[in-house]
Amino acid sequence: MTLWGGRFKENLDKVAWQLNSSLPFDQRMALQDICCSEVWADGLQRAGILTEGEHQEILRGLQEVRSEFQNKKFKFAGSDEDIHTAIERRLAEVTGPVAGKLHSGRSRNDQVATDFRLWIIQTLPELDSYLAGLQAVLIDRAETDMEILMPGYTHLQRAQPILLSHWWLSHFWPLQRDRERFAQMVGHLAALPLGSGALAGSTFQVDRKALSSSLGFATITKNSLDAVSDRDFVAEFLFNASLTGIHLSKLAEAIVLFTTSEFGFFELADAFSTGSSLMPQKKNPDVFELTRGKAGTLLGLLTGLMTTLKGLPSTYDKDLQEDKIPVFAAFDTLAAILPVISGALETIKTNPVKMSAAIDPSMMATDLADYLVMKGIAFREAHTIAGKAVQAAADEGIHLDKLSIKKYQNLSPVIEDDVYEVFNPKKSVERRNVSGGTAPEAVKIQLAKAKSVQAILHYQMVQTRCQ
Amino acid sequence: MTLWGGRFKENLDKVAWQLNSSLPFDQRMALQDICCSEVWADGLQRAGILTEGEHQEILRGLQEVRSEFQNKKFKFAGSDEDIHTAIERRLAEVTGPVAGKLHSGRSRNDQVATDFRLWIIQTLPELDSYLAGLQAVLIDRAETDMEILMPGYTHLQRAQPILLSHWWLSHFWPLQRDRERFAQMVGHLAALPLGSGALAGSTFQVDRKALSSSLGFATITKNSLDAVSDRDFVAEFLFNASLTGIHLSKLAEAIVLFTTSEFGFFELADAFSTGSSLMPQKKNPDVFELTRGKAGTLLGLLTGLMTTLKGLPSTYDKDLQEDKIPVFAAFDTLAAILPVISGALETIKTNPVKMSAAIDPSMMATDLADYLVMKGIAFREAHTIAGKAVQAAADEGIHLDKLSIKKYQNLSPVIEDDVYEVFNPKKSVERRNVSGGTAPEAVKIQLAKAKSVQAILHYQMVQTRCQ
Amino acid sequence: MTLWGGRFKENLDKVAWQLNSSLPFDQRMALQDICCSEVWADGLQRAGILTEGEHQEILRGLQEVRSEFQNKKFKFAGSDEDIHTAIERRLAEVTGPVAGKLHSGRSRNDQVATDFRLWIIQTLPELDSYLAGLQAVLIDRAETDMEILMPGYTHLQRAQPILLSHWWLSHFWPLQRDRERFAQMVGHLAALPLGSGALAGSTFQVDRKALSSSLGFATITKNSLDAVSDRDFVAEFLFNASLTGIHLSKLAEAIVLFTTSEFGFFELADAFSTGSSLMPQKKNPDVFELTRGKAGTLLGLLTGLMTTLKGLPSTYDKDLQEDKIPVFAAFDTLAAILPVISGALETIKTNPVKMSAAIDPSMMATDLADYLVMKGIAFREAHTIAGKAVQAAADEGIHLDKLSIKKYQNLSPVIEDDVYEVFNPKKSVERRNVSGGTAPEAVKIQLAKAKSVQAILHYQMVQTRCQ
Amino acid sequence: MTLWGGRFKENLDKVAWQLNSSLPFDQRMALQDICCSEVWADGLQRAGILTEGEHQEILRGLQEVRSEFQNKKFKFAGSDEDIHTAIERRLAEVTGPVAGKLHSGRSRNDQVATDFRLWIIQTLPELDSYLAGLQAVLIDRAETDMEILMPGYTHLQRAQPILLSHWWLSHFWPLQRDRERFAQMVGHLAALPLGSGALAGSTFQVDRKALSSSLGFATITKNSLDAVSDRDFVAEFLFNASLTGIHLSKLAEAIVLFTTSEFGFFELADAFSTGSSLMPQKKNPDVFELTRGKAGTLLGLLTGLMTTLKGLPSTYDKDLQEDKIPVFAAFDTLAAILPVISGALETIKTNPVKMSAAIDPSMMATDLADYLVMKGIAFREAHTIAGKAVQAAADEGIHLDKLSIKKYQNLSPVIEDDVYEVFNPKKSVERRNVSGGTAPEAVKIQLAKAKSVQAILHYQMVQTRCQ
Repeated sequence: MTLWGGRFKENLDKVAWQLNSSLPFDQRMALQDICCSEVWADGLQRAGILTEGEHQEILRGLQEVRSEFQNKKFKFAGSDEDIHTAIERRLAEVTGPVAGKLHSGRSRNDQVATDFRLWIIQTLPELDSYLAGLQAVLIDRAETDMEILMPGYTHLQRAQPILLSHWWLSHFWPLQRDRERFAQMVGHLAALPLGSGALAGSTFQVDRKALSSSLGFATITKNSLDAVSDRDFVAEFLFNASLTGIHLSKLAEAIVLFTTSEFGFFELADAFSTGSSLMPQKKNPDVFELTRGKAGTLLGLLTGLMTTLKGLPSTYDKDLQEDKIPVFAAFDTLAAILPVISGALETIKTNPVKMSAAIDPSMMATDLADYLVMKGIAFREAHTIAGKAVQAAADEGIHLDKLSIKKYQNLSPVIEDDVYEVFNPKKSVERRNVSGGTAPEAVKIQLAKAKSVQAILHYQMVQTRCQ
Repeated sequence: MTLWGGRFKENLDKVAWQLNSSLPFDQRMALQDICCSEVWADGLQRAGILTEGEHQEILRGLQEVRSEFQNKKFKFAGSDEDIHTAIERRLAEVTGPVAGKLHSGRSRNDQVATDFRLWIIQTLPELDSYLAGLQAVLIDRAETDMEILMPGYTHLQRAQPILLSHWWLSHFWPLQRDRERFAQMVGHLAALPLGSGALAGSTFQVDRKALSSSLGFATITKNSLDAVSDRDFVAEFLFNASLTGIHLSKLAEAIVLFTTSEFGFFELADAFSTGSSLMPQKKNPDVFELTRGKAGTLLGLLTGLMTTLKGLPSTYDKDLQEDKIPVFAAFDTLAAILPVISGALETIKTNPVKMSAAIDPSMMATDLADYLVMKGIAFREAHTIAGKAVQAAADEGIHLDKLSIKKYQNLSPVIEDDVYEVFNPKKSVERRNVSGGTAPEAVKIQLAKAKSVQAILHYQMVQTRCQ
Repeated sequence: MTLWGGRFKENLDKVAWQLNSSLPFDQRMALQDICCSEVWADGLQRAGILTEGEHQEILRGLQEVRSEFQNKKFKFAGSDEDIHTAIERRLAEVTGPVAGKLHSGRSRNDQVATDFRLWIIQTLPELDSYLAGLQAVLIDRAETDMEILMPGYTHLQRAQPILLSHWWLSHFWPLQRDRERFAQMVGHLAALPLGSGALAGSTFQVDRKALSSSLGFATITKNSLDAVSDRDFVAEFLFNASLTGIHLSKLAEAIVLFTTSEFGFFELADAFSTGSSLMPQKKNPDVFELTRGKAGTLLGLLTGLMTTLKGLPSTYDKDLQEDKIPVFAAFDTLAAILPVISGALETIKTNPVKMSAAIDPSMMATDLADYLVMKGIAFREAHTIAGKAVQAAADEGIHLDKLSIKKYQNLSPVIEDDVYEVFNPKKSVERRNVSGGTAPEAVKIQLAKAKSVQAILHYQMVQTRCQ
Repeated sequence: MTLWGGRFKENLDKVAWQLNSSLPFDQRMALQDICCSEVWADGLQRAGILTEGEHQEILRGLQEVRSEFQNKKFKFAGSDEDIHTAIERRLAEVTGPVAGKLHSGRSRNDQVATDFRLWIIQTLPELDSYLAGLQAVLIDRAETDMEILMPGYTHLQRAQPILLSHWWLSHFWPLQRDRERFAQMVGHLAALPLGSGALAGSTFQVDRKALSSSLGFATITKNSLDAVSDRDFVAEFLFNASLTGIHLSKLAEAIVLFTTSEFGFFELADAFSTGSSLMPQKKNPDVFELTRGKAGTLLGLLTGLMTTLKGLPSTYDKDLQEDKIPVFAAFDTLAAILPVISGALETIKTNPVKMSAAIDPSMMATDLADYLVMKGIAFREAHTIAGKAVQAAADEGIHLDKLSIKKYQNLSPVIEDDVYEVFNPKKSVERRNVSGGTAPEAVKIQLAKAKSVQAILHYQMVQTRCQ
């Protein structure tokens, strides 16, 4: 069934039909479409277009169609062009001709915009729970691994010793930003387009504010032309998903590195690693590599959608039909990755000995410079002296902490015997006790903060009349 | 001068130096870098690393360097590696060795992250003013053009008559979302990284909250590793800029269409159109075409940056140096486009006769269906009847409003003589009096809302100790 | 079945398994994988790893498995990790333990690279036939519409009159470049990776050149590390597909414009247009809008893949598993669009009257300037004079061809009565008789060239031992 | 000066002018524009539009303008809109009014398309020389490092031992593909648009083939509408540059890894590494990180341009002005990176001891399986046995080569004392003597091939009449 056949003499060509059909993907919004029809029926009744009897009949019919979807008994017809058509067709079978009154004053343009916003609104809590789940694992690890020291890197070169807990938490905060970004977009999503008609608004006096409340939306869209074409929320969703992908890719990249034989800081559980069809000894971090790879794919979804949006004139154009596949794909990707990453990090084994062994004394060169600063040397000079000490030790083929006091004093007379304390990594870490720093005390405060923000429920369940 | 030469035996190769140097672009953050150094000097003084005398000397020196920048008298040296180095080098020339104390406990990693956030925070109000400026023009046009009817389109096919004012306002709301998105990111920007050191935090007990207040930031970053590598705000800025670009491109696409001879709805002022080097009769909408083209370029900036971010391990990697050029380019692009578009729309001439002539009676076919609905026909059947009327009129080569009453009554006996009122476009528009619809009454309410939200100042000027 | 279970104590976690599994998409390469196994079995036999009996047994087994796929009787097992595993598992069921010898000296890394190249090589002719099909339609239209004049546009402003045939052919040549680009990549595709093992080459003395010939490849890859990780051909395929998408989008954009009521140059057949669920009079060019939209999606596939490739170290990483979905999606997209566009253009109706009416005399302003040039005026001055004529006509509210001879002679004394011939659009078109120009003579030559290049078969069918 | 002012009453608004002006970047094509004008003057003379005297005068004038550019004495005027305008303006100052004849029958549309193609054609040899330069370094390294063994990785896990030379060459071949891709596009570039006019071809009988030969082009474009709007070559250039960027990024990523303390395979020369402003011991691979980062930026340039191209109707639209900046930026980026990478790899120090130490006996597990295969065990079973051996060794905390013969024979009775030879990495490498494999013999053959293809000159210098 098409909703528009009246003036046409020929049917749509078969290949064109297939290209045109959105049913393979938009059926995912079946329940949202039914909700949307229920509130529209309410609106039509209040506007006097449906009698109370017709209204009830339609509601009963929609309830039956919903059950069919919920029980996976709904059967699509070959002639169903999209989910809206399919549901209206089935409704007519269930209720008879009264179903034909439901589409009064609305268009698929405002209908699909509403369905899609509702689908995302209802999906965000699930996505949030996956993100919060991974955060919980990171918090657990941070709590457990509080005693473990590891090298911190910049430019992938050993830089300064840090707490492993601090490192775990460095992956917590980006996820927190992701959760907040997704939460912030609810404000943008929850503006109801329904009632905008095809482009110009409805001729029936439907109270859009009332519809909006019924569906759990916060407000209504302000301009009907904009309402049917606005896909900012789609771009935002894909951008947020893509940025989440980048954060997961960063984490994954680090795990791939840290599970190499050369670093050896972590070992994956067998349940989260894979082998080689050729090389019997291999233990591969496939799930992290896939995470890294899928971050590229996510960015492609964003780019594709935004390229499509660019250049359309205002109001509805069919190009917009390309908006749903990337959103579903992005959600499915994150929903697939996040639990796996969570499981893998929950079960990963740390190797504190290897981590600790990787902290060589030159990593305390900044501490040496800071020591000199505390003795009154200007930092710039202190940095140069410490640099020379590094060079001197390298020339002798020894570590900084083995350089003789004489050599040190040649470099600067202010250096005294206590200089060797500088090279204790544990103390080095403790010294970085500024807020947000790696000192155990600071990390504990950070951890407490992380726990408190992680526990925040970002979403109230949407209360709609049709849940 | 490099800040890191101590341990190196050879100088950086010349070609490598050029590749490495960020001075050509990061000098744009000179004033922000000075601000940042001033508050850091305060912090070091409070932490006991600088005496009050040293502190004052450094502040005086920084003030002098600032004046040099403000008066465009600052001279870069060939050896300046980046803006931080250049300023510290010059400070040392101005104050002598005390300048060497300023870099105690900080790193260019936390410094550049702070400068960059501050630059964006301070630039957003300017960007907002350009957006608000274009909004003001759209509001003016909507106010002026309230009596003008035009065809509304979907799929670029004539759909239903609308008010030109309604169309102008359909471009207002996307810009409002853009302004709000930029404003929302201030919350993300205003977390201070300073004090995070290279990656692990500072060993000096600097009060980061105090620094944050001094610089006008709302809070401090929570994890030093994350703080030096987080570029979410860069991606957000570019995403927002890119989405703004898409909105401007949509508007531009419409103007390009509506200024064709075929549509002829608008005519550009000479001051905002260009000619052809070959064809003397041409009047080209170049500025709108460039707007459309630059929207592609903006999306490229976003994609490029996000590709770079994807796959870096946590903490600072030099790849991040690629973050500034796209932000400056995106801002400059919008700052170039927005005033031009504003000027062009302010001076554009409307052609109400052409617009009105383009409203053919078939555009009231929905009204005909709605008329039937009001007579008790189910919409689905009404739609079919209206479709048949369209077909019947087309077969006779006449317009819908010329079809005889007999023909109409053949299609449906409920049709009466009053059917012809349906084809009055002005009444059609008036009928769409739902909130957000195109009826004059609804558009006036919309306009009032637009005015009130446009006037909202999105930014408080950042109050810093160094303005 | 996994091919790598020997050293593992725990099975792969269920969610990780799902993330890891490539079977849902790589099964599309089943026949290629079987081909690849057949030639590998040949190679192992020649290298002495398989006896002739074992070799024959394996070939018989593979033939049986192939039949199962061809007859859609192949049953996947829940434990099949990917298509390679599935086929090897099934082969073992069919042949018994000898199947276990087939994977000697090869890895899924070189196997999948080979399968994938082969799949693309075998798919290109089909893609070419769709492109050539659309070209054939454009040639037909160009041939049929040779007498029709239309306005040519730049900046979407009327510029100069052209032949409709010339316009049709302007969409032919980009497709020709696309076909050539796809054909050129065969040279890049047809280098055989098989025999590269997991990364370092095989220990068995397999003659790779012989394998290459058997599979119809032109050459072998030169470095095993590169061979297993090179995905340049994937990026090239997606780039070519994306550029084809852009060409189709340009064509689609033009059709959308030219089927508006305002232009009215074309009318879509009912079989290739769709209606509105709300507005009974609408006839929408959905298939062209979808084409335009899908061009964005195609670009996203390219961007996604390239982002994934960027930053991987050399040799195989699992991220590469993300390479297949975009290639399949890009092919399916073009295979869906191209026949529909072809059908729609074959059946589109032209409206020569509207086209001709849209050629206003000012479009011959360049001809006026050229007329002056032929009278010895320097072009720059001639352009100015013609510009003034345009202005003078506009001031009088008349067309250029109605401006009195006196007015013309005021502008330039060289102008004579013959000036009015300049405004004949047919003659204007005929004057542009340079190669590649719009004059009928030039277009006929162009058309002949188009026919001859369109007919070139770009692909020899790959001759493999296993077709 | 604008070339189009005749019909306009107001000047272009100042902000619009700035937006519109392309002079800041298109002046880079000054010499190409002059060449193009010279051949056009020839064409006009042959077509009878210029007398021989006028022709010579124009050529002399152009030669003078060229000298001014070559000697950096050319002065732009504030009124120059673009490079074409600037040159024509200056030509008129030099030659007087005859200059006004030069633009007869051409348009900036065909002119800029020609200039731009010519610029790329003339720039490709320089780009090729940078790529060939890096290849030469890789060849040198491969030659020098022929004796050095290193671990080969897949999934960043140690996989099998390889020759360092083999690894160097694995980065040679992608660059070879890049060079070939750039060379292949010359065929696409060298089709001359000149003579296509603004869109419809020229009215003057200019012999385009002759122009094409004069400018060193191979052929002429076939359709004037396509000729002025075709930017496929721009997309191709950016795609090729972006793929080159990806190859360099892969190499850079590997160098960053291999210069970590943990891997320690390479040490950068001081001349190609940088230090830290805070941490005196740091030696950072900045130039490789920037290479990695800039690969993202290059992809952004491609995406941006393709987004802009998508959706334009045929023929020239001003959006196309966005095509030049990304091409110049992409070239400059590669021209900056390639020499630096070449220098850095030329001077990098290898650490054969560390590489060799990283080859642990488990990396010969495949060799153990292959050993079993040679003893007649089916590979699948051999793989399982080898996997169990790996597990057994791990359980004992020993390496594979320390597992007792008894243990081995428990796993499989076919194992004999000669099994221990399997664990010699040098022999392992030698065994992979298939074409393209890592055996020294195979690598030498590969190296010879690399040398011979590297030496191929990809470009004939373009012979134009105006060099």
